[in-house]
Amino acid sequence: MLYNYSMNDNPQLQKHIDTLIALLKIPSVCALPEHKEDMKKAALFLEDQMKQIGLQNIAEYHAKGHEAEPPIVFGERIDDPKNPTILVYGHYDVQPADPLDEWKKPPFEPVIENGNIYGRGTTDDKGQLMTHLAALAELSQEWGDTWPVNIKIIFEGQEEMSGVNLHAWVQEPAAKELLKSDVVVVADTGFAAQDQPTIFYGIRGIVYFQIDVTLADHDIHSGVFGGILLNPIHALVEMLQQLYDAKTGKVLVPGFYDDVLDLDQEEKDLLAKVPFDGKQLLKDAGNAYALHGEEGFTPKEQLCARPTFDVNGIWGGFTGDGAKTIIPGNAHAKFSCRLVPNQDPEKIAGYIKEYLNKIAPKEVQVKITHIHTGYGILIDRDSPWMHSAVQALKDTFGVEPVFDRSGASVPAIADFKNFLGLETLMFGYSLPDDNLHAPNEKYNLQQFEKGIQANKRFYQNCAKVKK
Amino acid sequence: MLYNYSMNDNPQLQKHIDTLIALLKIPSVCALPEHKEDMKKAALFLEDQMKQIGLQNIAEYHAKGHEAEPPIVFGERIDDPKNPTILVYGHYDVQPADPLDEWKKPPFEPVIENGNIYGRGTTDDKGQLMTHLAALAELSQEWGDTWPVNIKIIFEGQEEMSGVNLHAWVQEPAAKELLKSDVVVVADTGFAAQDQPTIFYGIRGIVYFQIDVTLADHDIHSGVFGGILLNPIHALVEMLQQLYDAKTGKVLVPGFYDDVLDLDQEEKDLLAKVPFDGKQLLKDAGNAYALHGEEGFTPKEQLCARPTFDVNGIWGGFTGDGAKTIIPGNAHAKFSCRLVPNQDPEKIAGYIKEYLNKIAPKEVQVKITHIHTGYGILIDRDSPWMHSAVQALKDTFGVEPVFDRSGASVPAIADFKNFLGLETLMFGYSLPDDNLHAPNEKYNLQQFEKGIQANKRFYQNCAKVKK
Repeated sequence: MLYNYSMNDNPQLQKHIDTLIALLKIPSVCALPEHKEDMKKAALFLEDQMKQIGLQNIAEYHAKGHEAEPPIVFGERIDDPKNPTILVYGHYDVQPADPLDEWKKPPFEPVIENGNIYGRGTTDDKGQLMTHLAALAELSQEWGDTWPVNIKIIFEGQEEMSGVNLHAWVQEPAAKELLKSDVVVVADTGFAAQDQPTIFYGIRGIVYFQIDVTLADHDIHSGVFGGILLNPIHALVEMLQQLYDAKTGKVLVPGFYDDVLDLDQEEKDLLAKVPFDGKQLLKDAGNAYALHGEEGFTPKEQLCARPTFDVNGIWGGFTGDGAKTIIPGNAHAKFSCRLVPNQDPEKIAGYIKEYLNKIAPKEVQVKITHIHTGYGILIDRDSPWMHSAVQALKDTFGVEPVFDRSGASVPAIADFKNFLGLETLMFGYSLPDDNLHAPNEKYNLQQFEKGIQANKRFYQNCAKVKK
Repeated sequence: MLYNYSMNDNPQLQKHIDTLIALLKIPSVCALPEHKEDMKKAALFLEDQMKQIGLQNIAEYHAKGHEAEPPIVFGERIDDPKNPTILVYGHYDVQPADPLDEWKKPPFEPVIENGNIYGRGTTDDKGQLMTHLAALAELSQEWGDTWPVNIKIIFEGQEEMSGVNLHAWVQEPAAKELLKSDVVVVADTGFAAQDQPTIFYGIRGIVYFQIDVTLADHDIHSGVFGGILLNPIHALVEMLQQLYDAKTGKVLVPGFYDDVLDLDQEEKDLLAKVPFDGKQLLKDAGNAYALHGEEGFTPKEQLCARPTFDVNGIWGGFTGDGAKTIIPGNAHAKFSCRLVPNQDPEKIAGYIKEYLNKIAPKEVQVKITHIHTGYGILIDRDSPWMHSAVQALKDTFGVEPVFDRSGASVPAIADFKNFLGLETLMFGYSLPDDNLHAPNEKYNLQQFEKGIQANKRFYQNCAKVKK
């Protein structure tokens, strides 16, 4: 009875935990080629679960040209097309488990301790997607042959690798038809704090660039040639300095802020209600040194409602121990801006490119590469679907959920909006100390249990929505 | 007769070439541990040559604690202590031969083609030091048992690795006593252009620093934490930007230019006479893009008579292919300033450290490491020793030598000045196309032949100097 969740005697819950454990034991690390077969195993496992619940048309999908990638697993149950249709999204791939020696228990041999289940994928996202499968399993018992809501499910196997298969697939006409729904629900987020259910109603967009500065074919002796050449690192530093003022936290690209929506008082009040612990946040950020953000905004606003600028990497010249007196032949930087909803990333990318071309020093060769973009999205907080979620969380946890915005960019959610015209309800049951993407990842089993209950309520509430 | 230098029938010259070839065949690459025995072999070879010439007290020296390093080879001939004493310096170590596949002939199997001898070390510095050994060999025949000048020779085996053994040794009292002389002569430089004999009368100094900026223990997700932290690359960029204005080419550290000597008209005129081919220089600098230097100075002046600032290397964050949306946990840069004579590098290092500590942002941790310093030196152009050199070059090449300053920093020459109180005459016979430190390194045999003659004249002229 190693896996027994001793906090209650609910045999149904025990079954869900057993199912979750079986799924967690499959090391579905998409990033590592040696786990290719595990990706297929995890997909088949989920298909089998969907079948048991009573879903139909279960199938694996790939976008054209992405056939070698992990499949998108699909299943649906449409008892009456006139009923509300909920599209459930989750992902069965997990982050690599490195560094292995920091795990107290092997990452793919889940164990339960002190009310938590430990293992890679527990909180991201296998435990969370199981709250939906488990809720639907229980509801299918209650509903019998006639479900009052239609359910469509897609689980992708590539989320931790930016989900290119899904991104391409949702643009194909057949997929668009298949995925027609009223709203998407995703459990891949968590509580802002212990006991504080949280619904995310926004994500940030992104533009990502690389600058390559070339002075010469190779590194040059800084004594023999020092004084008559523009060092490419200097050229790069000058350009970065003109892109962003680190002191004020302002991006200096003309037009950059034109379409940024000001926060109205309602949103300011909402965000102020989200628990914010700066000290804890610094600790979570690898014991970061101090808070420092854009002038005129609270840290919470800086984190989710304001665009950012970050050099993600920089390199050039001699980087070994000691000293080498060279002028580097070339220098490079990668930078990205998190964008907010209403900022069109393609337009912003255009501004950045134009500006960089203008400020690029003429004494070196400058190559600017626009690597990718992502859209920021805001979700209507006043839809009947959102009300269904709010009520379900409130009734289950006894606490009014807070509305939060995520600072990250979630391509799938932008794609659902841009290509399917669907809004996504983001609420999940992770806790801040779940060690997301880190060793000793865990999921709290009380959150799991209550999450299943909240999801059941959510579906039941959706069933009552008049379309 | 593979090695026959067909331009003349001088049997003495042929013997010098044979000796040079034997020395070139010893792959005395100090940087590579597998050549440890070759370093010893090259040292013994030179000791044997010195003995044949008639030098005495031949011995190997090491500074205390540097016994495992290649020896400093010493030999002397003091027939009358009242005569002028010349200290000859050279180095028998060579640069590694990489990249091997770019050599047309094996680097340690010297061949003669079109009046050049090809091989690693031909121009740096074995061919050049041989111009002194050969000159003394011929003179010893002429002088017989009573030399009119005293000769001391040191050949080090670590010049390409910053000569720490020599640097430590010349500070030891016994070495100071042993090396007492009137002037040092070094053949480790070349002609400013074909047919233009050149004497260097200055070298630049250097200060070398590393800045380490730390924000957090590890890289951080730029979505989850973007907007509330000072990116360490931004902090670094801000600091570098405040150290140096790449547009004007000016260092911004207070006090930095205080002790820089203005060039008087005489020096400006001297430097203007040094052949300067900007296009060729850009080609030599790895096909560098364009000239760009400090405002208000000619490129020649920028290259040798003005201090510089160069970031030698920079690194931090994600530097792989594609995109990774992180805020780096840390960022680093190495930078150095070439200094000019009269700038005290320790004082300048102090200014830089003080300034950096002042401008370091408080939202990150900044560590400043002063890695090393070197002194800039100016040599008296009006000494009898310098006159001896000028006349020797003029009489041999039929052209008035130009006076040039080197942009590089040569620790040995600074040490001779600082620890032995000796000025160094820098003139050698390399040509601009000798592929110094590069594949297919060569030395022109006419330069070799005339260099021997010029050195003979130099020693003869020195013999006439009234002390």
